[in-house]
Amino acid sequence: MPNLYAMAQPLSKNVIRHLNSLKIKKYRYTHREFIVEGPKVVEEFLHAGWEAISVFTVNRDLLPLLEFEKIVLVSDGELKKISALQTPNSILAVFRMPETLPEEVTFNQWTIALEGIRDPGNLGTIIRVADWFGIGLVVCSPDCADPFNPKTVQASMGSLARVKLLETDLPSFFRLQATVPVFGALLNGTSYKEVDYPSAGILLIGNESAGISDTLLPFITKPITIPRYGQAESLNAAIATAIICSELSHH
Amino acid sequence: MPNLYAMAQPLSKNVIRHLNSLKIKKYRYTHREFIVEGPKVVEEFLHAGWEAISVFTVNRDLLPLLEFEKIVLVSDGELKKISALQTPNSILAVFRMPETLPEEVTFNQWTIALEGIRDPGNLGTIIRVADWFGIGLVVCSPDCADPFNPKTVQASMGSLARVKLLETDLPSFFRLQATVPVFGALLNGTSYKEVDYPSAGILLIGNESAGISDTLLPFITKPITIPRYGQAESLNAAIATAIICSELSHH
Repeated sequence: MPNLYAMAQPLSKNVIRHLNSLKIKKYRYTHREFIVEGPKVVEEFLHAGWEAISVFTVNRDLLPLLEFEKIVLVSDGELKKISALQTPNSILAVFRMPETLPEEVTFNQWTIALEGIRDPGNLGTIIRVADWFGIGLVVCSPDCADPFNPKTVQASMGSLARVKLLETDLPSFFRLQATVPVFGALLNGTSYKEVDYPSAGILLIGNESAGISDTLLPFITKPITIPRYGQAESLNAAIATAIICSELSHH
Repeated sequence: MPNLYAMAQPLSKNVIRHLNSLKIKKYRYTHREFIVEGPKVVEEFLHAGWEAISVFTVNRDLLPLLEFEKIVLVSDGELKKISALQTPNSILAVFRMPETLPEEVTFNQWTIALEGIRDPGNLGTIIRVADWFGIGLVVCSPDCADPFNPKTVQASMGSLARVKLLETDLPSFFRLQATVPVFGALLNGTSYKEVDYPSAGILLIGNESAGISDTLLPFITKPITIPRYGQAESLNAAIATAIICSELSHH
């Protein structure tokens, strides 16, 4: 397929408009394209085998891995016009969104299930946490932030290139797989330090303010909590996920 | 002192300009005022005894605690003009910055020391984590984000009202207090699960990308690390802080 982007140098208004439209979910899914920024994160996507459609950079030498014809050299001013970052970071790449869901969803390891994580930064941070602790699959309810939101992509620091994401209706998901226990992070439950973690299970994390909904409570086999020693009312959802993942990955 | 804000209804351009200037560090420190938004977070500051200079709200009933004359009723449109949030949340309050440092800095408990935490959201999240785990003091190097940055205030979710913050030169700080051990979070060290935590100590966390600087390494008595089971290159600084705090608070 011809590279539509590369035809325009300097960047045409149409190209700038198109790239900016990818900051909006609707257009990302219409075009099935998303944006990744910064040499390090772009490199991680290329390295993990994702298909770059085009790469805009102020310095060609930053991308030794990439085929030459996909690179468009831009000025700092042009990069600023297309970047989603406050401080653009040398490279903006457009990648193709995967058409298919993860082929085999297996539960012989730990999986994270997220209900209504709305903040794109939180979602990206959770994906990064999953990647650090070797958790290969994150299942998201339909009302979670979009994994291809630029803020999610950047907060994941490249981990989105490796961790599998599955968007699905959580009640059906829990009904279909009854084989592994579901550990739910709640404000009341057994301390996460006092439970035995099997080698496979699902860690369920609820919405940033409302927590896990009543609809999902019946699917929890083990309610767990992070003991509080001070006065904060709650912990950030990504923080809670990380604390529990660090414990269960030791078992 | 007369309430300058309350004189203007509808809000004058000068008041709007002044409130917007408080989003910039220089002006926050010139006026020694900072902004807090949302009924819940404002309530936490009032509850902890902080001095509200003025409160702008679309609904007076949201603030039962506050003396009436400090409240300015504004329209949704006016609130949008002064808010630092993408989606304004009913109330914006201006608080007076504390003039003094924490009076007694004692080390009979755990303290968090931060070197160059640049992201205001990370700093706010760390303050919230400290509050959850009952850590009363966070010491920041001068190149950390400003604790009174609106993003820090919001990410702390009110915990900034309770946790004491101290900005200081970290080498001098470590030289002056040699009585408690310093646990440094590094990529190489003993697993944070395998060490004994005393009842008092300092947890040192480094910059988001560079980690702890060579200047501070000699002050570390116990290098600790969070074992990695997957492929992410690093963990977010607030996430690392939380995982370690959760472990040390159990001891």
